[in-house]
Amino acid sequence: MTLDDFSQYARLRVDDYLTHSLGQYEPATHLQSAMAYSLFNGGKRVRPMLTYAAASLFGEANNLTDASAAAIESIHAYSLIHDDLPAMDDDDLRRGKPTCHIQFDEATAILAGDALQTFAFELLSDSKHQNTKVQLQLIQELVHASGRHGMVTGQMIDLANVGNNINIDELEQMHQHKTGALIRASIRMGAISTGAKSEADFAALDAYAVAIGLAFQVQDDIIDITSDTTTLGKTQFSDEEANKPTYPKLLGLAGAQALAQSLHSQAITAISPFGDAAQPLVELANYIIGRNH
Amino acid sequence: MTLDDFSQYARLRVDDYLTHSLGQYEPATHLQSAMAYSLFNGGKRVRPMLTYAAASLFGEANNLTDASAAAIESIHAYSLIHDDLPAMDDDDLRRGKPTCHIQFDEATAILAGDALQTFAFELLSDSKHQNTKVQLQLIQELVHASGRHGMVTGQMIDLANVGNNINIDELEQMHQHKTGALIRASIRMGAISTGAKSEADFAALDAYAVAIGLAFQVQDDIIDITSDTTTLGKTQFSDEEANKPTYPKLLGLAGAQALAQSLHSQAITAISPFGDAAQPLVELANYIIGRNH
Repeated sequence: MTLDDFSQYARLRVDDYLTHSLGQYEPATHLQSAMAYSLFNGGKRVRPMLTYAAASLFGEANNLTDASAAAIESIHAYSLIHDDLPAMDDDDLRRGKPTCHIQFDEATAILAGDALQTFAFELLSDSKHQNTKVQLQLIQELVHASGRHGMVTGQMIDLANVGNNINIDELEQMHQHKTGALIRASIRMGAISTGAKSEADFAALDAYAVAIGLAFQVQDDIIDITSDTTTLGKTQFSDEEANKPTYPKLLGLAGAQALAQSLHSQAITAISPFGDAAQPLVELANYIIGRNH
Repeated sequence: MTLDDFSQYARLRVDDYLTHSLGQYEPATHLQSAMAYSLFNGGKRVRPMLTYAAASLFGEANNLTDASAAAIESIHAYSLIHDDLPAMDDDDLRRGKPTCHIQFDEATAILAGDALQTFAFELLSDSKHQNTKVQLQLIQELVHASGRHGMVTGQMIDLANVGNNINIDELEQMHQHKTGALIRASIRMGAISTGAKSEADFAALDAYAVAIGLAFQVQDDIIDITSDTTTLGKTQFSDEEANKPTYPKLLGLAGAQALAQSLHSQAITAISPFGDAAQPLVELANYIIGRNH
């Protein structure tokens, strides 16, 4: 399967699962419109691709793989809605379209984000899966990655860092919380859904996850200064204007590009024990470094 | 045990469990301060009292009872933080103290609310409980009560209703979602934590929960026009000023008071099959109707 084929496979599966699970709940029609607007806004579905790719190492993707991918996208979507709010990053555009609070209003955006977080746990706790032990393990992974030990704290550190001079370690700590934790969970949850159990396997996947998670951020910072606004779907130099610390600022553009390459190599090395089965994860690492938006 | 004793018992247990579970996580120090500020703001802990009272019908309160009470308080605290935001109800005071976004700032308040929601699921999914089946059942209850099928949709309906003429059925639908669902979950989760299984027991508890949940709101509306600002800890006539639909507006003050009494009777009748064991639930129903703040 080429990366394009794999991307389409993952997108179809997760979108279908999300649509089916969201369903209709009449009293919540307006709320669910805002939830769906943000869930289906043309995102690249990188995290679901990672979930399905990791799952494929241990068995065939199943309903719990779908639920994991969908739950992670719900958490990701909620975090983007809240990050875009006027009190946070104050962004009007996301992937070339109005952000949720612009398309709807601020109160609806706050509540849609809140409901998307709960929806993630709804997907994982659904009694139809009939696998309480694995479901609880998946919930623990998602909790750890998205709450005070992960994503939310990353966003707090990010906000506190605006306008501050921080060093490379502090920048890495911020990214490990803000985006790295959820990327790592995407991979671990995929593996758990198809029965991964060995500590060595999780250690290899974690090493891969940490490297591509950070590479993803370094590449994001590079793209912000090398791609124009049309390609980005958001404003070029937005990090610069927001006075945010970035890798190119701390290391120079060439230094940041070298770091991205080095992280790419680490990621590939980490998953080499899985052999050919890891091909989708290899291609995802290539994509993360190669992308220009 | 008198109601005061029972209130103190529930408060001590849930506060201790919350404090212990929140612990210290160094990168999240500031975030956790905001979470703790809102968790320990002098709230009456009505929901934990309901959880412990319902639990006591089926057995001795255990760690899962504590986790349930603490998780519900975390959801309640997150909802208050987000409801108080400028884009929502725009309240500066809560129980006589600055609301979270006034005490900290808006971004911190949004993130503290987000993290408190995740924290609720952290408490219930904790592997230390070693009871995956019941834990998953508790998570399902909390998801259903707090997300798109419950509380968040209630808040959406509430916002949509401001300035609108709605009838008594629409007002009830709003309250059933906004506060009724979580009150019902408080009771059901307490019962589940100590092993309740019979459908008849859950039906009796649900009937009690629906009646006191609504009575709580009717009494809230009554208090808003009969108590002064000092007693309330928030501004008197705030519903009036916000142009919100209320029971006294739809039924008159005497009509609202009669409805509260009738709901009280329904609640007491519903739990009469439990006999003397239901005394704490009876006293809680008395308290809910009798309170003036």
